[in-house]
Amino acid sequence: MNTPFLYHGQDCHWVIPSQDSLTVRVVTEAGFEPTAFYVRCEPDNEQKLIAMNEVKTDNAAASRLKTWQAELPLNRDKPTTVYCFKAVQGNQQWWLHGEGVSIRVPGLEKQFRYNAAHQPPDWVKHQIFYQIFPDRFANGNPSISVKDGEYCLQGKEKPTLAKPWGEPVSEHGTNGACEFYGGDLKGIRDKLDYLQALGVTTLYLNPIFTAPSNHKYDTSDYFNIDPHLGTNEEFAELVADLHQRGMKIVLDAVFNHTSLNHPWFDGFERREDGLGAWKNPSSPYREYYQFDGDSDDYVGWNGVKSLPKLNYLNQAVRDYFYQGEDAVIKHWLRPPYGIDGWRFDVIHMLGEGEGATNNAHYVKAFRESAKSVNQDCYVLGEHFFEATQWLQGDQEDGAMNYYGFAHPVRAFFTGLDISFDPCYLDAETFAAWLMEAMAKVPWQNQLSQLNQLDSHDTMRFLTMANGDEATLKSALMFLFCWVGVPCIYYGTEVAMEGGHDPDNRRTFPWEQLDNREDMVAFINTLTTLRRESNALQSGSLQWLYAKGDVLAFARTLGDDVVICAVNRSEDQATISLPLWQTGTTQTCFSTLFGSKSVKASERELMMTVEGKSAQILW
Amino acid sequence: MNTPFLYHGQDCHWVIPSQDSLTVRVVTEAGFEPTAFYVRCEPDNEQKLIAMNEVKTDNAAASRLKTWQAELPLNRDKPTTVYCFKAVQGNQQWWLHGEGVSIRVPGLEKQFRYNAAHQPPDWVKHQIFYQIFPDRFANGNPSISVKDGEYCLQGKEKPTLAKPWGEPVSEHGTNGACEFYGGDLKGIRDKLDYLQALGVTTLYLNPIFTAPSNHKYDTSDYFNIDPHLGTNEEFAELVADLHQRGMKIVLDAVFNHTSLNHPWFDGFERREDGLGAWKNPSSPYREYYQFDGDSDDYVGWNGVKSLPKLNYLNQAVRDYFYQGEDAVIKHWLRPPYGIDGWRFDVIHMLGEGEGATNNAHYVKAFRESAKSVNQDCYVLGEHFFEATQWLQGDQEDGAMNYYGFAHPVRAFFTGLDISFDPCYLDAETFAAWLMEAMAKVPWQNQLSQLNQLDSHDTMRFLTMANGDEATLKSALMFLFCWVGVPCIYYGTEVAMEGGHDPDNRRTFPWEQLDNREDMVAFINTLTTLRRESNALQSGSLQWLYAKGDVLAFARTLGDDVVICAVNRSEDQATISLPLWQTGTTQTCFSTLFGSKSVKASERELMMTVEGKSAQILW
Repeated sequence: MNTPFLYHGQDCHWVIPSQDSLTVRVVTEAGFEPTAFYVRCEPDNEQKLIAMNEVKTDNAAASRLKTWQAELPLNRDKPTTVYCFKAVQGNQQWWLHGEGVSIRVPGLEKQFRYNAAHQPPDWVKHQIFYQIFPDRFANGNPSISVKDGEYCLQGKEKPTLAKPWGEPVSEHGTNGACEFYGGDLKGIRDKLDYLQALGVTTLYLNPIFTAPSNHKYDTSDYFNIDPHLGTNEEFAELVADLHQRGMKIVLDAVFNHTSLNHPWFDGFERREDGLGAWKNPSSPYREYYQFDGDSDDYVGWNGVKSLPKLNYLNQAVRDYFYQGEDAVIKHWLRPPYGIDGWRFDVIHMLGEGEGATNNAHYVKAFRESAKSVNQDCYVLGEHFFEATQWLQGDQEDGAMNYYGFAHPVRAFFTGLDISFDPCYLDAETFAAWLMEAMAKVPWQNQLSQLNQLDSHDTMRFLTMANGDEATLKSALMFLFCWVGVPCIYYGTEVAMEGGHDPDNRRTFPWEQLDNREDMVAFINTLTTLRRESNALQSGSLQWLYAKGDVLAFARTLGDDVVICAVNRSEDQATISLPLWQTGTTQTCFSTLFGSKSVKASERELMMTVEGKSAQILW
Repeated sequence: MNTPFLYHGQDCHWVIPSQDSLTVRVVTEAGFEPTAFYVRCEPDNEQKLIAMNEVKTDNAAASRLKTWQAELPLNRDKPTTVYCFKAVQGNQQWWLHGEGVSIRVPGLEKQFRYNAAHQPPDWVKHQIFYQIFPDRFANGNPSISVKDGEYCLQGKEKPTLAKPWGEPVSEHGTNGACEFYGGDLKGIRDKLDYLQALGVTTLYLNPIFTAPSNHKYDTSDYFNIDPHLGTNEEFAELVADLHQRGMKIVLDAVFNHTSLNHPWFDGFERREDGLGAWKNPSSPYREYYQFDGDSDDYVGWNGVKSLPKLNYLNQAVRDYFYQGEDAVIKHWLRPPYGIDGWRFDVIHMLGEGEGATNNAHYVKAFRESAKSVNQDCYVLGEHFFEATQWLQGDQEDGAMNYYGFAHPVRAFFTGLDISFDPCYLDAETFAAWLMEAMAKVPWQNQLSQLNQLDSHDTMRFLTMANGDEATLKSALMFLFCWVGVPCIYYGTEVAMEGGHDPDNRRTFPWEQLDNREDMVAFINTLTTLRRESNALQSGSLQWLYAKGDVLAFARTLGDDVVICAVNRSEDQATISLPLWQTGTTQTCFSTLFGSKSVKASERELMMTVEGKSAQILW
């Protein structure tokens, strides 16, 4: 579509809030002379068109671009204000919205959205996250490691299995949850120098509260660290150490269901006090779960009976998790712990009764509980699929961005979707998917999305890519340049492989560190670039190219510009990028890997990208 | 995009509900052999993929098509269940959703949606609506007509002006609201034979309750018909007469604000009882409005001070309009009136405080109030722009479909948008707009949308089209074939013209009826076709062509198929339509205008559409 090039940055140079209004800017080609040009908004759900006026900027690129500006009212009735731009020229209209440009009014879901009432904490977007599955990262205290047959999971059926570090994990569907390698909190703390040197700034830990399984998504005690991982005191010391280093920590919150072993349920051996709800209709905890009358049948998470679903219609449950003075959510945010955020497990499935009834109410309440202790708490939701409805400001600050990042990125680079079905995406479709997901989320929340190539719930990216490290490197460069916070799954820096769960949770091969200095250095270069670049942390996004196997985009913040180009094909690609559209006058760029600088004319950047590689220029 | 032709009808032959589940069908080319084929749904917000299985149908077209079927669970936690289809073939995926086919998972907003809990009344989709602006339709009782200077609007400033039938209305912005022509309820009743002969089945009347202006959006008494239009008894008789004819009636509900003359406000002369809220902080009605403390300042609708906005935080207001035993909403739905539906004026702007805060709560409450008296009440919302959020089942049955019908149709046919800015749309973009709007709304609600070419709030379509009746006829044919209920604005059948408000509210030129037998007959042919065609009332939609100035689509229900083709250009167009995709084996079609029948091969229908015309085949 031959547009008059309309571009609306979404960063602080382009969207300037005040108490009741928003000043927004748009750039067009200098020669564009629309007969009408408006910003369109919907105060009180009614359309309002406000004229855009040309403003002079001191940008040297102004001779090629024209900047327009208007002020629009912030919505009073909703936390989020939506807007888009309408320009008329000749017999044609051009509408600029979150997905790009179209010749008719865009649907509301595509319009720009500003979340005035519920900004995510500022610190989040500046981080480099690192996800740790605690049992598999490092064993710092062998004396507390789970021993062979130390206890049983699910009654007597599943005795614990202690395995030597490095031994292969069991096959999928066998001993996945029962085998232990001894990773613990001390192990993590021992590696903080290493992680800090790698450039990591925030840890996200899979669950660490007392629970029988190795993954610990089956909590039996919400107020105590699992004794095989460490003590509450050790955890407080770990957090203190992190904070002293200027680092942060986010914990996993599993509040949808408990373990069968939780004393409230007491699903196996009757506790001493005999008060558990299982087979005990008169239990004081009976209403913590959802039993079918006096029968032994109850609701499990997603039908899984080993994870009995909590009953949020019960005030005692609400008090325990979020409403009470010492509710779990508040407890760990307070001294002596003071964690920096919660990652809420299967938060979209939580609700009243069997399913997710009234879900938004609880997510808002969790948020309010967390923010009441620490306004800067990062409220992160786990959503394996589209999370738009939780990201409109008043629920989550960000989501584990599977839908808008991991799924499209894995499909583009490896040709497989999340169900391992073939999924060929050309660069155009890939870009459209990313933009669709982003457009539906307010910009500050886009910046606070947690982007990952892989996690404890997916096959490792490198294994998806058949072990092709060139593809992994391209994808990592994309990850570090894209909008949202990059999160590295532990071991990526030594090119760990791993198939389906639990193979994606292998022990960290510390002995490989020396062999893989190349990969560690590669990651380190990316973390350094990201940490030093405001443009990558909070800059606007501008597509410069997307066709077939090749794409390029710019991140800009004021005069700071970074360009990322990716070539998925085997063959070298030479592309011409309309550099002038970014507003930069920079003509000489550094490249991230390799010593050569790249020169551009003022209008155009000719760029050659080798086969199966990416380039970052800044 | 070269797809394996995937098609999911949305009518009762394709979507078969039961208590807890939905059986859905999809058709593909017979030769399509996917390696995987699923329906995707999200019970409790979590993805579920359910395999589609081939089913044998007794359809004779089965040799060219293959039908697939699966059963999916209805959502328990939400009134609406969303789903789409995923097929894998080779290295490629095909996803089928409400907007069409794509090669990646569609955003949730595009997915098919089934509204199990809140089906609109069945009768709505079978209707032909006719909108009447009462003062301008017919004067049946001159003795009650407003007289020159009979009273004043807004204090002494705006005396009423009685004008002879047929005299031009005043200029925009002058006496628009003060001039009266004498149309009344008796006039409408006198014309029922005429309307019934025209094929009209439901009347939608602009407001008729007591109010000073001619448009009566400034109510001063919600329980009495304006005495210049008739009496409550006459209204009851009108409804009885309509019902006896098998016709229905929908009234305008103006519950966001009142007139300044309403006794609660009493904005001009102090009433005898001296109780009005205006300049009277101690008024018992003070809290019916939103005064700024004891000052004379108050909130008006959209800032318009002549329409003081009601205060829904006041229980008395809630009781009066919807909660009380004899609330306005309930009153007119009960005997002796028994109206069939409410069209809620500016419903999207209603809420607490100044704007639309907590809007959804009130719309749901209005709905519940109406349905508590008559489950079959049509709950229709006025929304000049996108109404998606009110159409998910639990708020409105349908909307005045400006966003998804009038705006795109007016733009496609006349090249102007609703703000009279040039807006060129090619047929592809036009089709995409229509599909985007439809995809976001559950199918039964799509069928209950009120589609209009024009209304009392828009320039008349014919005037937009510079008086070109060929264009009007094409647009009317489109209206009667499209998904949703057609509504004719009074006078369209005699090709009335009219510019901006109030020129779009001219008196009905009854003397023109004889001159315009052609146009009346044209409308009559369309109403007859629509009333006799189940496919047009409730059949699935299938696009057959959309390119440049030409488009064609089919509506099918079982074996019943109707094809509509439109050619906007000056030149004749010959198009080839893939008839086999509809599943029909019919090869001989009747045409709506002209005696010729059209023959098709089993695969293809070659069709010639003259310049600036449309054709309907069935």
